[in-house]
Order: sequence, then C-alpha cells, then structure tokens
Amino acid sequence: MTANPSFPDSFGFDPQDPAFRAHEGGKIEVVPTKALRDRADLALLYTPGVADVCRAIAADPSLAVRYTARGNTVAVVTDGTAVLGLGNIGPLAALPVMEGKAVLFKHFAGVDAVPVCLETGTVEELVEAIVRLAPTYGAINLEDISAPRCFEIERQLRERLDIPVFHDDQHGTAIVVLAALINAARVVGKDLATLRVVVQGAGAAGVAVAKIMARAGIPDVVVCDSRGIISPRRTDLVEHKHRLAATTNPRGLSGSLGVALRGADVFVGVSGGQVAEHDIAAMACRAIIFALANPDPEVHPLVAARHAEVVATGRSDFPNQINNVLAFPGLFRGAFDSGACQITETMKLAAAWAIASLVAEPNALEIVPSVFDPRVAPAVAAAVGAPPDSYPFVTVNPGVPLVHTALT
Amino acid sequence: MTANPSFPDSFGFDPQDPAFRAHEGGKIEVVPTKALRDRADLALLYTPGVADVCRAIAADPSLAVRYTARGNTVAVVTDGTAVLGLGNIGPLAALPVMEGKAVLFKHFAGVDAVPVCLETGTVEELVEAIVRLAPTYGAINLEDISAPRCFEIERQLRERLDIPVFHDDQHGTAIVVLAALINAARVVGKDLATLRVVVQGAGAAGVAVAKIMARAGIPDVVVCDSRGIISPRRTDLVEHKHRLAATTNPRGLSGSLGVALRGADVFVGVSGGQVAEHDIAAMACRAIIFALANPDPEVHPLVAARHAEVVATGRSDFPNQINNVLAFPGLFRGAFDSGACQITETMKLAAAWAIASLVAEPNALEIVPSVFDPRVAPAVAAAVGAPPDSYPFVTVNPGVPLVHTALT
Repeated sequence: MTANPSFPDSFGFDPQDPAFRAHEGGKIEVVPTKALRDRADLALLYTPGVADVCRAIAADPSLAVRYTARGNTVAVVTDGTAVLGLGNIGPLAALPVMEGKAVLFKHFAGVDAVPVCLETGTVEELVEAIVRLAPTYGAINLEDISAPRCFEIERQLRERLDIPVFHDDQHGTAIVVLAALINAARVVGKDLATLRVVVQGAGAAGVAVAKIMARAGIPDVVVCDSRGIISPRRTDLVEHKHRLAATTNPRGLSGSLGVALRGADVFVGVSGGQVAEHDIAAMACRAIIFALANPDPEVHPLVAARHAEVVATGRSDFPNQINNVLAFPGLFRGAFDSGACQITETMKLAAAWAIASLVAEPNALEIVPSVFDPRVAPAVAAAVGAPPDSYPFVTVNPGVPLVHTALT
Repeated sequence: MTANPSFPDSFGFDPQDPAFRAHEGGKIEVVPTKALRDRADLALLYTPGVADVCRAIAADPSLAVRYTARGNTVAVVTDGTAVLGLGNIGPLAALPVMEGKAVLFKHFAGVDAVPVCLETGTVEELVEAIVRLAPTYGAINLEDISAPRCFEIERQLRERLDIPVFHDDQHGTAIVVLAALINAARVVGKDLATLRVVVQGAGAAGVAVAKIMARAGIPDVVVCDSRGIISPRRTDLVEHKHRLAATTNPRGLSGSLGVALRGADVFVGVSGGQVAEHDIAAMACRAIIFALANPDPEVHPLVAARHAEVVATGRSDFPNQINNVLAFPGLFRGAFDSGACQITETMKLAAAWAIASLVAEPNALEIVPSVFDPRVAPAVAAAVGAPPDSYPFVTVNPGVPLVHTALT
C-alpha cells in the first residue's frame, strides 16, 4: 500500500502510544460462566458430572448447542495474508485484529469469538485445517485472507461445513456499503435502479460489493482494478475478474478509472489505491463517494466533498463511517438465534435494509447509524433471523419513508 | 469401559439433572478486557490504532506476548478419542470436558484456555492441524487423545513448536501421582528408593507414571496391561510397550497383575479395568493403593482400605483425590510467567515436589492438598518457573520434615 500523505505516518513501536497501551496484555480473556465454589460444583462442571453431558452429546449431537458454548461461539479465522491495509503480515501479527474483532462481537451482540490464526498455506491446507477445527465452533468468520484465495476457501468451506461461514471482508463490507448507499440515494434523490456505480478494487470487498448491488437491483456497476475497467476485452484477467467482467459493466466500457467515473453517480473505493481529484470532478451531479480504504481513503474526504453531495469513509474521525461492525455482530447473533446453517444472500440483503432503516431521515452527514447505536445489532439479528419477503426498492425522494415493494 | 457395579450407572439425558442444568449454555465465554465506551476507544482497540500494533509485531514477533492475549492463552486440544473413561466419543462430545478444563485453568491460575476439538484423523493430520494453529496460542495442552497416538503426536509437536506442549493425561496425572506417592511414602514410613510399585494400565497415564517414578528415584516399577505384566518376554507388545518392557520391571517378572502385586508396596491403577480383592490382599504390609480410574476406580476405596494403609482415588467424594487440577493450572501459569518454551522433566518433578510439600504433616486421609487450596497453583507456578537444584529424596519417617538431598 502506498502511504497517503494526507494522513500522518503512524508506523513504529512506541510503548507510550495510547494504542500500544490499550493493547497491553491483549484485549480478551476466557472466563467461566458458572460458579466453581466447592467440590460439589467441581463434580458438576467437571468429572464426574461432565461425563453424562458428553455421553448425551455423543448420542445426540444436536445437544451440543444447548450444553456447550459452541452455539454462541464463532471462530475468527485468518492466515494473515491481507490484514487491514497492511498486506501479508502473517498470522501472528494479525492476532491483534482478530482479538479486536472478538471484542466487537461480544460488546455489540454477546457473541463469543475466538481468534484462530493459521500458518499461511495453500487453499487446500487452510480448508483442511478449518474443517478439522469445525466441531469446536458454531460459525466461522473468515478475516483478512487475500484474494483470490479467499473466494475458493469460502466456497469450499460452505460446501463442506454445516455451520455458517462468512468472509467479513467480502460480505460485511458489502452489507454496510449497500445500507449506506440505500440512504445516500435517498439523500441525493436518486433511484437505486438507475444508479451508475463505479467500484474501485476487485479484491474481496470489490467483488462482494458488486454482487450485492446486482442483487439489490442496481444494474449498472463497473468495477476497476489497478489497470482500469474490468471488461471482457481485457486479456490479463484472473478467474474471479473474468467472472466480474461477465456480470458487470453492462455498457461495455473500457479504459481507465477516469473513463468509468465520467457521469457516474457513485464511487465506492475498496482498493487502498488512490483516485485523482479531476476524475471524481467528472462524476454526475449530486454524486456519492465512499472512499473506504483504511486508514488512508482513496481520496481525502475533504477533497471528495468538493465534488460529491454525500461522502463516506471507513474512518471513525469523519462522518458516515462505513464500518463492518454495523453488520457482523448482529448477523451472527441472528444466525445463532435462528439456528441458521449458513448465511444466505437473502440474509445479507435483510441485514443491509435493517441497518439503513434505522436512519429515519438520512442526510449528507448521516447515512448510517452510529456503530454505538444500541438498536443496530438487535435490528440486524431480527432481520437476519426472519428476512422479510420483500425489500423497499425505489427510493426517489429524500426524507420519504421507505416503501416496501417487491424486489422481484 | 466395563461398568462398575459399585457405582450407579449415571448414563442418560435428563435436562433436570443438576449436571445438565450446570452445563446449560456452556461453561465459558470470551470477554473483552478493555473498555469500549466510545469512538476513541474503538479507534484504539480496532482500526486505525490496531494497525500500529500489528506492524510492530510483524517487525518483532516477540512483542506478541506483550500486546496480545497469546502469552496467557493455552489451547486445550483433543480429537475426542479417549475422553475420560468414555473412550472414543468424538470431538464434539468431548467439548464439555474441554470447556471444563478451561474453567479450571482460569479459576485456579488465571490462564485463558480455549477448547480446540479436532476431527479425528491420522497422527500426521492432527500434528499438521495443530502446527498450523499454533500462532494463535502460547501453549498447547493435549487432552483425551488415545494411546499410542498421543505419544507420537506429543513428540512431533514438541519438536516442531517453540511453545510448551503438554499432554495432561500423561504428565498431569504423573505429576500428581508422584506428589501423592511422596507423601503416602512418608505416611507409611517407606523410602521412595525402596518402593515396589505396580502400575496397572499401559496407556497415556501408565507410561507417564512409570517414567516420572524412574526419574524420581523409584527403581522398581512394574507395569501391567490387560494381559498382565509387561516384560521383554511378551511377544504381543506394540512399540511404546516394548520401550516400557526395556525400562521397567527390573526383577524380570512375568505373568498376571496378581503376580506383580505379591509383596508390592504401591498399586497405581490408571486403566479403567478392575483388580481383584485377593490380589491387593497379597501386597506388602502398609500398602498404598491409588485406584484412579474415573468415575469407577479399579477397586472400590472401601475394599482397598481393608488391605492398604493409604488409599486414593480420582473421585472428589472420597479422601485423597488425585486430581490433575492440582498440577496443570500452576504448571502453565509458571511456564507463561517464566517464558518457558517447553515443559521439561525438571519442571514436572518440581511441580510434584511443590504439591507434596504443601501438606506439612501427611496422614492416611490427607496426602495431597485440597484442589481448592489457594496455595497450590502459586506454589506449582513458582517451582516450575525456577526449579530447585535438588529435591528431597529420602522420606523415611512419617511426620519428619522433608530434607533436601540431591536427586543425583
């Protein structure tokens, strides 16, 4: 990742730095939920009492959900190959992020999450390791695994496991981007079905954002990688970009990001790269810019604001933080509560609409609820547990209440 | 395992049973150790603050101990092939035991422990999975893995990992048995170096008990399996029993368990099998019987008491409970606190002597401290962290303070 001169370079080890002080001793611990006061407690919680529970689960595996923590425990699994914007820093250095994720899971949704940092290996090796681990967990949250390996790993795990498998960098991002876009479109008075969207970045997040937009009824999505617009004419595409070329870019554009941005309504940056001011200046009026690379957005929000009506970033120090934490805690809460065996596309859409609907009257500085809004996780969990038959589809006028119209 | 008619058969699922009620929802949870109150906290504990910590660990992996929970976290790893006395019930049904272990680790020694239940596979598959997982943990506690696979798994992991690897069914049991035997010998006024010991069971625990006794200066140990005394004359021995035959049984006995017990000072049952009353009746005067199978001892303690001066079991409802919980929490506490890369033989002996020395005046009904004695884990941790140069070796008279004599 190229350093962004707009933000101070914060690299370096400084034990007095507040971030380092906040990480001293780690951020999570494993504590008993049952009192261990005396021999009687010990005999219930451990031998001999535990033996009956083991036997019962051996006879009826479905009892594990009731008599162990498994049914509320998600493994946050990484190999450390694509950590934040830091790249391949390895599984050990990824551990603080996984612990942070565990903090968020518990804080926002009461979900017990445990880091699982795996030595990097082939797709087959990682899948085998995760499958072998799976009896321990009620769900798998894949995290910070590099593209395109993450697609194949997720696909194989979904096929082989009977518990939810969710790659947050893909789908968590996609859900919150869609939620934000639903409300941003209301703010600028545009219809989702007529939006021209440009996604910069064809990695995990870019692919998932393009997919969820199609499912949400946005037909015109153009994805760009560092070499420009992804189109069937490109001869340098790897497999997942071939699939993108076949399913996006309906007007058959080719060329640079700048070409794609001419007249576009929405820019979604999930690349960690940069975008030039003259390119965003060529977007349609009342444009929407989501510059989500963290910690350094593709375009500084103050620059973006010169050319767009709604600006969002991934950062907490600017308005409209597009943060996966709006989605994943409630999503897993809902999956656990409803006993779901997987996270379906319908559940993802339901989560996005649930998040969007918590902002009653979106405006340019508020298109998503605060990550600390206590309504978020319960609303997402409820929506995921019982997705509605239809979603509001057309959002023509700002401030108009959402109308539930069939998505088809 | 054959059911023991001396104890009620407690098999069966009954949601009203206290053990099942105690397990409702599981026994552990994962909680944040740092406050997450606002955006400022979020920015320190998660992005962007966490990025600096990740970068620092990537640059200097030794910082992971300080800035993550890894340095206080042990994985309790099983494949569910030898759970308690229940046998091969599989990884899912083993989970309540692993959670129970995590409760004990935290309660007694402040160690964070996470269950890791792996789909059963070959030695190579399990080793590969555990090695791949290792960046996540500061230590590995192997648990309830069947013999003889457990020996090879432990050996390979110790070779490949730079963190402590400890198979509790072997070494935890051995440590506490030795601690108990040190004090039992004081009670009956016998010298460790002259004891004749019979170990019934040549699985994980039996092998480790025989080994630690040799290291503690007890030369005459005879191990029996279900076919009788293990000796070089046997033609049916698998590899680890061949090694036992070569290193135990100095008088070259052969025949049944009964033959071994004639004139023996100590019986240690770790088999889950049974021993006939007439066989223990043939032991030496002032005999010591440890019948440790759980929940059904090899001989009922009331029967054993007719023929032995000191009787111990694995059960909490009789005196002298030989319980691994006396060893493993303090052992890992000490390993973590001292930054040990492995659990050495010296550390195991130090743990045993530390446990034994907490009973100032052992008597027939008190040869080990209570598992709830708050001095135990700190004493074990301190001894393990800085093992003494020598151990008390000769314990001739009951009630005589332990004299520190070189072990050689």
